[in-house]
Amino acid sequence: MTLELIGDREIGQAAVAVRTDGGEPSPESIARAAWSVLAEPGDGVAGALIRELGGVDALEVALGESKVGSGSTATAQRALAEGRARWRPRAHARAVIDALRGAGHVGARLVIPGDPEWPDSLGDLGEHAPPALWVRGDTRLLTASPRAAIVGARAATGYGEHIAAEIAGDLAATGVTVVSGGAYGIDGVAHRAALGVRGPTVAFLAGGVDRAYPSGHQELFTRIAAHGAVVSELPCGAAPTKWRFLARNRLIAALGQATVVVEAGWRSGSLNTAGHAAALGRPLGAVPGPVTSAASAGCHRLLREYDARCVTCAAEVRELWGDEVQEASFTRPADPDRIRLLDALGTRKPLDVEEICRRSGLAPDRVRALLGLLDLEGMLTPSDQGWVRAATP
Amino acid sequence: MTLELIGDREIGQAAVAVRTDGGEPSPESIARAAWSVLAEPGDGVAGALIRELGGVDALEVALGESKVGSGSTATAQRALAEGRARWRPRAHARAVIDALRGAGHVGARLVIPGDPEWPDSLGDLGEHAPPALWVRGDTRLLTASPRAAIVGARAATGYGEHIAAEIAGDLAATGVTVVSGGAYGIDGVAHRAALGVRGPTVAFLAGGVDRAYPSGHQELFTRIAAHGAVVSELPCGAAPTKWRFLARNRLIAALGQATVVVEAGWRSGSLNTAGHAAALGRPLGAVPGPVTSAASAGCHRLLREYDARCVTCAAEVRELWGDEVQEASFTRPADPDRIRLLDALGTRKPLDVEEICRRSGLAPDRVRALLGLLDLEGMLTPSDQGWVRAATP
Repeated sequence: MTLELIGDREIGQAAVAVRTDGGEPSPESIARAAWSVLAEPGDGVAGALIRELGGVDALEVALGESKVGSGSTATAQRALAEGRARWRPRAHARAVIDALRGAGHVGARLVIPGDPEWPDSLGDLGEHAPPALWVRGDTRLLTASPRAAIVGARAATGYGEHIAAEIAGDLAATGVTVVSGGAYGIDGVAHRAALGVRGPTVAFLAGGVDRAYPSGHQELFTRIAAHGAVVSELPCGAAPTKWRFLARNRLIAALGQATVVVEAGWRSGSLNTAGHAAALGRPLGAVPGPVTSAASAGCHRLLREYDARCVTCAAEVRELWGDEVQEASFTRPADPDRIRLLDALGTRKPLDVEEICRRSGLAPDRVRALLGLLDLEGMLTPSDQGWVRAATP
Repeated sequence: MTLELIGDREIGQAAVAVRTDGGEPSPESIARAAWSVLAEPGDGVAGALIRELGGVDALEVALGESKVGSGSTATAQRALAEGRARWRPRAHARAVIDALRGAGHVGARLVIPGDPEWPDSLGDLGEHAPPALWVRGDTRLLTASPRAAIVGARAATGYGEHIAAEIAGDLAATGVTVVSGGAYGIDGVAHRAALGVRGPTVAFLAGGVDRAYPSGHQELFTRIAAHGAVVSELPCGAAPTKWRFLARNRLIAALGQATVVVEAGWRSGSLNTAGHAAALGRPLGAVPGPVTSAASAGCHRLLREYDARCVTCAAEVRELWGDEVQEASFTRPADPDRIRLLDALGTRKPLDVEEICRRSGLAPDRVRALLGLLDLEGMLTPSDQGWVRAATP
């Protein structure tokens, strides 16, 4: 595969069907479609390159032999070399054509940053943001607000399914988009409850949107695609893998303006989604259950270890995002340095600038400037000993 | 009733039986027995007077006509006049004799501040500390450590009773004294579980220790008195009242080095105990349950509104007091000004000295001195805008 693919007629034809603007597909859209084929979800080197150069020039660097630029460090050069080694085995124009045609077959669209349908909240993922999303269904749901991620264990109990249906149904009935992962158990119940009240729902898959996984949810995904949206960062044809499930969870957490875990075992994958939500500074809720129920152990762990808020009904889910959805972080342009700095801080032990630099990898001047800003926004609590993250930003 | 009662032979004889030191009952012990007859639980004027003057002199002021002293304010004089109006209708030597004899009949002892058995942790109640305690059973349990208050709804479910038994039994088996209120439901289960493992347990009653309330727990109280301790600030013969139940809750909260609510309805009385524990700065835990269970609604409320810690097993109860029991507040001499200052602070909005003075009613110099001390102890978080209470002291 070479950069010629951007001008390739066959690719251009296949791309027309997956773009909504009706005209000639932009080079950037084709480059990002190619990136979704080349790079695994969450590939930070690809993400940084695309953010720096745009999809087209990033692709040129990825497929070429040049160094990144005279200013780049030895570390950056090594990362690029390793990236090239990952990407090139997949660099076949045929794979891009297949992805575009596969999307065309199921009526999926390609949404990229800059499109009106692109959800800016994914920008909070920094270089781990996906280069593009493939969407079957209503692309407007990606930006409709508010959006609540309702997730939980596949091995749900009748109790958990009951609560998930109550909460998701109530939220969706009032226009809240229910975001989940399309899995058996809590996820499936949440989607179904939203569909049941003709409310909006978005399912993020870990493989291509043309593949039903789990296959038992084939019909559910068809209904979601018809009335909501089925979304993936993976191109059509891509199989779900363990890594892709984990990476997919970050998209659920980032798209949700709050994340609620309804039932989760001690090591449930939904705790991974919760962890992403917490790391992104998204409000996190957990539904308690009997302490005798292993299916609630993960929720209690979130209450104990992650400072999750105890949530017992839909009204308490709405309290999670409060006024923030209108006001603050979701309209603010994303700045990955902010996230890194906030990640570096704890809520207990104050850290000084030197330690924050060490943890975040940011320069002292940058750290000082950001501390000032974040302090103004109430995200931090300053003290004589340094800075801590505000408990309730 | 006059001060003569302290030298009264009949009272002296009756008092011998309820004191453990074997000698002549001290004037202070007789005065405090009298105070427990005169003043309702939590009578702050009585408490302040006793703290200031000691039981004997306080009684002289209460029964006399004199003003408190040349330095006292008009407010203090009015409070004293109102106090006298409350106490005098009860000021009969016969009532004190009956209380002492009643205690003698059931083998109850009178424990007062200064006795080795007196629990200093009650000092955190300031002027709302009881003047004396009446104890049937092992008085040493009042000071044995650690002590966990395990409380909850009378209208408990099988789930709540199961968890209460698990937690209380596990704690008591390892030497933790299980403190509770002797009520039906969670309280009774907690006491029984402790007795079942031959572990220590203390029941605080809202009436005299010679009266079983609820009467269905007569046999349970007999067992607790035999193997643990049944305690009240009310003299023998006193009936439990609504107020006395509420006041009793503060003793459970103050004696417990942590308080755990196992099951509680939305308006359960055990939330009152939890509120006292929080106000006293005692660690507070709540056991979650199904959100569909009204009997757990109060626990979820504690998790949401009182920052209670989610507790699912005995090990997590032990974590509540952590190293504090050895180290800090429970050996520190009680200072009600500390409590008032901490009460005045919130955990979110920083307050400056002026506002703290306004809220606490303490003088600026005193506030500044205490802020310094409490800051050293990690009880506060200073900021440019003022002071907040540390989230986890």
